[in-house]
Amino acid sequence: MIATPGILTLTTDFGTKDGYVAAMKGVIMSINPELRLVDISHHIGPHDVMEGAFILRNVAASFPDGTVHLAVVDPGVGSERKPIALRHNNQYFVGPDNGLFSLLLSGTDAELIVELDLPQFWGIPNPSKTFNGRDLFAPVAARLASGLTLSSAGTPLDQIKTMHWALPIADEQGIRGWVVHIDRFGNCITNIEKKLFIESQNDRAFKCYAGTSIIDTNSTTYSNVESGEATCLFNSHDFLEIAIHRDSASKLLDIRKGAPVNILFIDEKIPA
Amino acid sequence: MIATPGILTLTTDFGTKDGYVAAMKGVIMSINPELRLVDISHHIGPHDVMEGAFILRNVAASFPDGTVHLAVVDPGVGSERKPIALRHNNQYFVGPDNGLFSLLLSGTDAELIVELDLPQFWGIPNPSKTFNGRDLFAPVAARLASGLTLSSAGTPLDQIKTMHWALPIADEQGIRGWVVHIDRFGNCITNIEKKLFIESQNDRAFKCYAGTSIIDTNSTTYSNVESGEATCLFNSHDFLEIAIHRDSASKLLDIRKGAPVNILFIDEKIPA
Amino acid sequence: MIATPGILTLTTDFGTKDGYVAAMKGVIMSINPELRLVDISHHIGPHDVMEGAFILRNVAASFPDGTVHLAVVDPGVGSERKPIALRHNNQYFVGPDNGLFSLLLSGTDAELIVELDLPQFWGIPNPSKTFNGRDLFAPVAARLASGLTLSSAGTPLDQIKTMHWALPIADEQGIRGWVVHIDRFGNCITNIEKKLFIESQNDRAFKCYAGTSIIDTNSTTYSNVESGEATCLFNSHDFLEIAIHRDSASKLLDIRKGAPVNILFIDEKIPA
Repeated sequence: MIATPGILTLTTDFGTKDGYVAAMKGVIMSINPELRLVDISHHIGPHDVMEGAFILRNVAASFPDGTVHLAVVDPGVGSERKPIALRHNNQYFVGPDNGLFSLLLSGTDAELIVELDLPQFWGIPNPSKTFNGRDLFAPVAARLASGLTLSSAGTPLDQIKTMHWALPIADEQGIRGWVVHIDRFGNCITNIEKKLFIESQNDRAFKCYAGTSIIDTNSTTYSNVESGEATCLFNSHDFLEIAIHRDSASKLLDIRKGAPVNILFIDEKIPA
Repeated sequence: MIATPGILTLTTDFGTKDGYVAAMKGVIMSINPELRLVDISHHIGPHDVMEGAFILRNVAASFPDGTVHLAVVDPGVGSERKPIALRHNNQYFVGPDNGLFSLLLSGTDAELIVELDLPQFWGIPNPSKTFNGRDLFAPVAARLASGLTLSSAGTPLDQIKTMHWALPIADEQGIRGWVVHIDRFGNCITNIEKKLFIESQNDRAFKCYAGTSIIDTNSTTYSNVESGEATCLFNSHDFLEIAIHRDSASKLLDIRKGAPVNILFIDEKIPA
Repeated sequence: MIATPGILTLTTDFGTKDGYVAAMKGVIMSINPELRLVDISHHIGPHDVMEGAFILRNVAASFPDGTVHLAVVDPGVGSERKPIALRHNNQYFVGPDNGLFSLLLSGTDAELIVELDLPQFWGIPNPSKTFNGRDLFAPVAARLASGLTLSSAGTPLDQIKTMHWALPIADEQGIRGWVVHIDRFGNCITNIEKKLFIESQNDRAFKCYAGTSIIDTNSTTYSNVESGEATCLFNSHDFLEIAIHRDSASKLLDIRKGAPVNILFIDEKIPA
């Protein structure tokens, strides 16, 4: 067991208007008012499990060992999908078994997975069938962050449900990927990772076809191109990103989530 | 007096962009930096006292005894409406006397109500007439959460201002209610409580007329109907709710806040 | 050095959906989980340094001495703009040197300014060139809030970059100013300060031309005019503000950010 620093994060598609997140926090603080609560995001698209998985994957690693991450994007609430908790990279994750944790693991195995089938750790014996976040997940997360061991919290499971994005396709000529997320700035984040890109590039120049634009500058910051100019760069999570300096690439290049991004390598070395 | 766990919640119509909420938190932390602050909602519709009352009523009960709830939806700021604090269900509530606490009490009496007329507990002797939240309510709430007794905070009042929704009408044939809130998922929450429904239903089958749809399945979860199918169910606060599995009932059935919802009972027993 | 109460505020243009703010908080809590984090605003317009400067200026003073304010509105991230920290009014400010702190100082000198050029206080030796907030500013802010002295955090600088709004112009006839911010309620906040107004007014009556309206009532609250009536008043930060009681002045009077507001003084005394 990893000692927990009493940090509990929350990731949901509940929004921040209706009070659903606060209801979970009230339940958590009723169990342990000393816990330190941090919101990761409550603006995941309604029912968009994959978006929740993406944000969680990007942010979790910034937290210290022992952090408990409560994640509830749960279109199947009340159905047969299992409530689970798992340990990965010395952190804990609590939520529905619907793929929400699969980008995080990215093919590796969780260190331990349990089904949360022990009502004594829930908030009430008969959780609302429409709000497991308040009645089941939040209480278990609060208890894990307060010292309950994962192996005591339920029955071991062999594996979690996985969901996968279509992966980029790379060959000698180039890479075909797509836009998996558009952030508040209109930056378009693709599924093309830096490692794949560099290996395929093999020091060649390239053109990047994205939306209405062909980009052949590989900048590493937003600002070493002129204002209003498009660029592609590796973002802070090492994904290829299409950006426009001080403006929205999504709007100006007409790129939406799901749009294709094609890299064409050119048989000439990059000018030194 | 109830011992306070040092938890202070905030409910406002201030939004989260302009820094008004943070100004209140700064004032609170200047009085007691040890308090644990939790946002209930800052996205109450501007000046929508009733919406604030509804969210507060739903969420407050999830917090532990002794919690102080600061609520500021205050279109009459600077006018003659009284600043008050009250105790109910072993929790404290601080805000303007304009109906914001009336759904919470729902006809019962508060355990104690005081008018906040003692400037020594305010932030400054002459509060801004446009921002009592920062200059009057937040300081008093911080002091109550830090041990000030309610009876010391001001002069006792007999009653608070109440606001009421039109109640649902039930007779032998059915129930006529209306939609009081639409949440982020497009779920349409009515003013028809489970208790009234069950008593009126008397084990009969029913049809629910809402927006463009007639629903005759009474599901208890969102997910035991097909994706895209409408259902009605009792939500986690025991109100009847019109929902569509994995989609927005508000959008797909053209239901807006205030829309009528009619239940017609049918003289045949529900098939077992 | 001022003792710090361990309070750290955050002001950004990151929004709350993408998890960027949470990544900074994770880094901060990895350095010191005891710090008390308060969000000032994450909904500053993308790249809108001046809006960030305005919100920060209005809210910072509500926090206690020793508070550390982390502010990241940073369109030039990765460029030559310097990362800085400074002390002003017994509080600390950390962020990019791009004008974000210039309204706060409003012409006065900071007590001490340093360039954050010491990698041992950053999160990692080579910060992401697209996310200095996570890799550089947040770690330094966490350390300042945990006891690192400002003078140890980097190399002293003589001055910060300043940005200024066009100031209002006052003469014997009146004052010409403009709208610098529109808040969630549609209140239109101008750059005309109470002190300038009162001095210029010299007890004369006045008319205020704003959008489609001519206002000659100088109210001091939102509510001592009728619902739906326009008024102008000094807001809780002593700026002249155009407001409509219980409605949006921006919408109803067609006033946008940047719109002119003209005050015309009239050679008759205000009726007593």
